[in-house]
Amino acid sequence: MIKTIDWGEGKIRIIDQTQLPAKLVYRDLSTLKQVGEAISSLKVRGAPAIGLAAALGVALQMNSSPAKNYLAFKKEVKKAIKYLSARRPTAINLFWGLERMQKVLDKNRGLAIPELKKILLKEALLAVKEDDEICRKIGRHGASLVKSGCNILTHCNAGGLATGGFGTALGVIFTAFEKGKRFQVYVDETRPLLQGARLTTWELKRYKIETTLICDNMAGFLMKQKKINIVIVGADRIASNGDTANKIGTYSLAILARAHQIPFYVAAPFSTFDLKIKNGEKIPIEERKGSEVTQPFAVRIAPAGIKVYNPAFDVTPASLITGIITEKGIIRPPLKKNIQQLLA
Amino acid sequence: MIKTIDWGEGKIRIIDQTQLPAKLVYRDLSTLKQVGEAISSLKVRGAPAIGLAAALGVALQMNSSPAKNYLAFKKEVKKAIKYLSARRPTAINLFWGLERMQKVLDKNRGLAIPELKKILLKEALLAVKEDDEICRKIGRHGASLVKSGCNILTHCNAGGLATGGFGTALGVIFTAFEKGKRFQVYVDETRPLLQGARLTTWELKRYKIETTLICDNMAGFLMKQKKINIVIVGADRIASNGDTANKIGTYSLAILARAHQIPFYVAAPFSTFDLKIKNGEKIPIEERKGSEVTQPFAVRIAPAGIKVYNPAFDVTPASLITGIITEKGIIRPPLKKNIQQLLA
Repeated sequence: MIKTIDWGEGKIRIIDQTQLPAKLVYRDLSTLKQVGEAISSLKVRGAPAIGLAAALGVALQMNSSPAKNYLAFKKEVKKAIKYLSARRPTAINLFWGLERMQKVLDKNRGLAIPELKKILLKEALLAVKEDDEICRKIGRHGASLVKSGCNILTHCNAGGLATGGFGTALGVIFTAFEKGKRFQVYVDETRPLLQGARLTTWELKRYKIETTLICDNMAGFLMKQKKINIVIVGADRIASNGDTANKIGTYSLAILARAHQIPFYVAAPFSTFDLKIKNGEKIPIEERKGSEVTQPFAVRIAPAGIKVYNPAFDVTPASLITGIITEKGIIRPPLKKNIQQLLA
Repeated sequence: MIKTIDWGEGKIRIIDQTQLPAKLVYRDLSTLKQVGEAISSLKVRGAPAIGLAAALGVALQMNSSPAKNYLAFKKEVKKAIKYLSARRPTAINLFWGLERMQKVLDKNRGLAIPELKKILLKEALLAVKEDDEICRKIGRHGASLVKSGCNILTHCNAGGLATGGFGTALGVIFTAFEKGKRFQVYVDETRPLLQGARLTTWELKRYKIETTLICDNMAGFLMKQKKINIVIVGADRIASNGDTANKIGTYSLAILARAHQIPFYVAAPFSTFDLKIKNGEKIPIEERKGSEVTQPFAVRIAPAGIKVYNPAFDVTPASLITGIITEKGIIRPPLKKNIQQLLA
């Protein structure tokens, strides 16, 4: 268990994920702008962790608010929410974290400012605490899918670093391991920003779980050789029909898994579901700058002036998903109907 | 047209492909060991180019041979062939180039040593000349597949740098462009060694062809968005049934192309066919060291001690291949039967 994001002495303390695996660096965020920058630059990343950072970001900002009355206070909350909501577009958890703060404020309207400050902070910290409980439940529900002796493939990082500290897809793997199961995990390096190579292998190594790193383009060949028994990934937003946005490359993996008849699971908390949208076509896909691809380590790997397409996410249709592992159990197809049933 | 490999003043001159795209560096190889090292370290790479390097390598070695009689000369040729044949296992062209030298020696047995030296060098240079003619024929046969306005996806580098100077998959693209067709090429960066990002974009840029670089894991999402009309790749070895070994990631692309009903073409000369083997299972797949994945630019991207699986190639089954573009035309399914017919 790591502390990806926490609160201490009037500041938010995060692990700066851009420094891993070389260094485990904690960074204190003491302004809203620092929180926004940490989200944009992926110092804090992973859908659930972004949601917690957003909630804590609002609490941080309001904690030092000079507002003298509820209206001024409310206006400042709104401004903070507007600022943070523009940091990254795809993960719904960001908006979930912000809405949660808005709701608790609305519910307590009229209370004294010092009281409201406490309530907002308490709510954000409750979200952090609940995240841990939720991840452990996801882990328990998913652990039965992991058999001793099996080979698991995962993509990007859906671990402790992507949540408050335990993880979703990796939470499943950690729980199975804690139950005494022994297996191997293949980790896609996950270009361009290498969250698999940098973060997931780092987390699995801490657990002493047998881990093999591969390049993203090797997954299909592993499957062909029958070296993969199950794929488990996280999610950044799940539409009401089960279509799932996740790190770029997830869709290709799902197609490959289907072609090789390998079960493909998504692990995600309820906060990742967006019941307001009908399907994956409505999910905004963030495009990031081309230099993430062409200059991965301040080294230029392509000629100057080459055009780059760099979508940070893709959408996997529900039809390719074997099940979604949530805190209330595994949602099986038909996903649309069963999501309605469990969440609505 | 570039000169990937050439002969001058008693030396082999190659473009050092590990230095691209930052610098266009030519390197003179004056010993057999330097040729072997250039092949192992991928200074010269790409199946057809490796074949030419092998043939020239034997000519180079024998050019300065101290042998006084045919037997000693023959023994030295055998030793050189043995040495070079162990440099890389997958591309059959390496063995093709070496066999070609062995054959011409056998055919001229008994001739005087100075004569044999000339004959070997002449044969290697003939292979270089023929490579250009063959690539241009491949280009002409394949160009009809490329329509104006279409989007092509290619993987790794099957360009001038992978041959004597014109290319196979890129030869098709260059020929279509020379015929006045205008289109866009998406290039997989091709981890771990980034031949797509470093070499293919560099070649396409020289032709002023519209080029977009992507990470390997983005190809599926592009296909889903209907942004790819045709996939064209090279090959390192084609079994007699059409199963094709090519750069790792090719198999995944072929599965993705099939799932999206996109034609998938392989472009390769006859020297890439291995009619002695029945199918792809018999093709040896080179595994390279893990540091190619974990330390791409002397920067460590994964924790120390993490296990890595790094196969340099994979095998695409014939059933996923729409056609193989050769110097004698496009071989269509049933590949096994039609390969026999054209090549045997």
